[in-house]
Amino acid sequence: MSAIAALADLTNHQVCLASRPVGLPTRANWTFSSEPVAAPGPGGVLVKTLYLSLDPAMRGWMNEGKSYIAPVELGAVMRAGGVGQVIASQNPAFAVGDYVNAGLDVQEYCLIAQDQLKRSGMFRIDPRLGLTPWLNVLGMPGMTGYFGLFDVGQPKAGDTLVVSGAAGAVGQTVGQLAKLKGCRVVGIAGGQAKCDWVVNELGFDACIDYKNGDVKAGLKEHCPKGVDIYFDNVGGEILDTVLTRISRGARIIICGAISQYNNTTPVKGPANYLSLLVNRARMEGIVVFDYADRYPQAVAELAGYLKAGTMKSREDVVQGLDNFPEALLKLFNGENFGKLVLQVASE
Amino acid sequence: MSAIAALADLTNHQVCLASRPVGLPTRANWTFSSEPVAAPGPGGVLVKTLYLSLDPAMRGWMNEGKSYIAPVELGAVMRAGGVGQVIASQNPAFAVGDYVNAGLDVQEYCLIAQDQLKRSGMFRIDPRLGLTPWLNVLGMPGMTGYFGLFDVGQPKAGDTLVVSGAAGAVGQTVGQLAKLKGCRVVGIAGGQAKCDWVVNELGFDACIDYKNGDVKAGLKEHCPKGVDIYFDNVGGEILDTVLTRISRGARIIICGAISQYNNTTPVKGPANYLSLLVNRARMEGIVVFDYADRYPQAVAELAGYLKAGTMKSREDVVQGLDNFPEALLKLFNGENFGKLVLQVASE
Repeated sequence: MSAIAALADLTNHQVCLASRPVGLPTRANWTFSSEPVAAPGPGGVLVKTLYLSLDPAMRGWMNEGKSYIAPVELGAVMRAGGVGQVIASQNPAFAVGDYVNAGLDVQEYCLIAQDQLKRSGMFRIDPRLGLTPWLNVLGMPGMTGYFGLFDVGQPKAGDTLVVSGAAGAVGQTVGQLAKLKGCRVVGIAGGQAKCDWVVNELGFDACIDYKNGDVKAGLKEHCPKGVDIYFDNVGGEILDTVLTRISRGARIIICGAISQYNNTTPVKGPANYLSLLVNRARMEGIVVFDYADRYPQAVAELAGYLKAGTMKSREDVVQGLDNFPEALLKLFNGENFGKLVLQVASE
Repeated sequence: MSAIAALADLTNHQVCLASRPVGLPTRANWTFSSEPVAAPGPGGVLVKTLYLSLDPAMRGWMNEGKSYIAPVELGAVMRAGGVGQVIASQNPAFAVGDYVNAGLDVQEYCLIAQDQLKRSGMFRIDPRLGLTPWLNVLGMPGMTGYFGLFDVGQPKAGDTLVVSGAAGAVGQTVGQLAKLKGCRVVGIAGGQAKCDWVVNELGFDACIDYKNGDVKAGLKEHCPKGVDIYFDNVGGEILDTVLTRISRGARIIICGAISQYNNTTPVKGPANYLSLLVNRARMEGIVVFDYADRYPQAVAELAGYLKAGTMKSREDVVQGLDNFPEALLKLFNGENFGKLVLQVASE
């Protein structure tokens, strides 16, 4: 039986966007469908999905309207990055058995035509560092943290950095990198377990439990000289509170606003934004795709830290494509502990 | 009769802060007092106030609490910059008859001791360019516009710049400088007369009348490529609307938020701030005092433009110290047409 013939026996289960959610997405917003697996054409590659990256940004892709990327169309397979294994290839750059990171979408198999390879961002990964870290510190969140911190935040040794979503994918990257660069690092996370982990395992100087503590008092205690860099993943009240504690010339990196993504009311703007004026401070947005040319350099640096044990990468793995709708919600209630990934298949 | 004896016959009328306003300041927030005029001690200077600068920032100085500058204390003479004439001097750097710009406060005479000269920011001005322009394009507003535009806004020829409060002191400086640097300049101002003036007299490309028109539609029409630089003097709804029209990599200079200064409710934060993320844009505050070392260079450049007629400076002059409380309110209802100044005395 040829490899191509074997492919014809496979079914590709997919999760498609059925309707645009109002507020939190529910199972009713998704349809499950399937199709036969097709063989790649000349220059194309077929990838078996192993792990998918579940990210706050997905909520934005489900909305209509202009953003930094087109919305997922109704009826289309939901967009997702992932790691997988090449199981058929007509492209000399990728061999059967290669592990890759790419835009695979929420499905079991992803057929990528030659002219879509670049758009998919597909690149080979080194499985010796594990697979899930390639969706975390070595993946998009890691790149986001790396370039947001260094290019926008411009940390100097001795700066005080605060990062929200501290135990999340971007947060753990940012905090650990800032520690390596000599900053004082204070996390904000939900629950004692996450706070303990970023302090005890990742080496943050302190972590404020926003679910059980007073963020303003925590900032006052742990950032006595004010906040020089705030890496914001959450928006809302926490952003507004940090704004009251920034120091002169502070840099605020606007990476996301997970507290606002499921609003059915308008986004809450930062009422304390005039603190930017008083403190001659800056608030700047970052979109990771702008740094694509420099990913290899950042990945090499971060992989070096992981290998040396000077950085850690923690993922929260949920099993099964069928559980995608509920797994995604873990992000929005803060249930995930570490980078949230969905395991779709075993190697 | 000696000069010193003549001084003893003079009375210094002053306007003092009696109470901290809630919302718009009223006459009840001020007391009028007087004192004899004293002669300067060794190294000191006595200045007769001619014109005082009335600025939106004054509203902030009336509030309690930490800001970029200490609040005016209750019972103290209200802080104000102004231009005046030296009428007695024990300092070789300033001669009787010199015209100066300094922190003179809301009073008829200002005695500046030697150790307060630096703090007062006193410098001699050239009256051949007129006196009131030294509180406008050649004064703090001009410095604010100059450094905010160039240092924070970083304009390039071909950029589209939008400035609110376009007919105000900062707005007229920013818009004219941006035109000189080859930008497309669109103002936002209240009323047809101001809009006509900035277009017909100052050479702006367009001006949107926020009192009688749709700002969003105006931005769409006049900034077809989006807004590269937004110089914000007003905050509130206008800031929020401009945020929906910024281009990739846009710079927003937070110079003030006059729409919010008299709020009795919390400041309205910019609900559309996530446009900074989508557009990889930046919002940054400026405080003019940080650029004090470079004022002379900026003044020289701006004075050159005024002399050459390539820039204009328009002031709205209200007469009389007694009218200070009502004059100040003109700023907040947008009645002033050009930089608002209070004439306290004639030369």
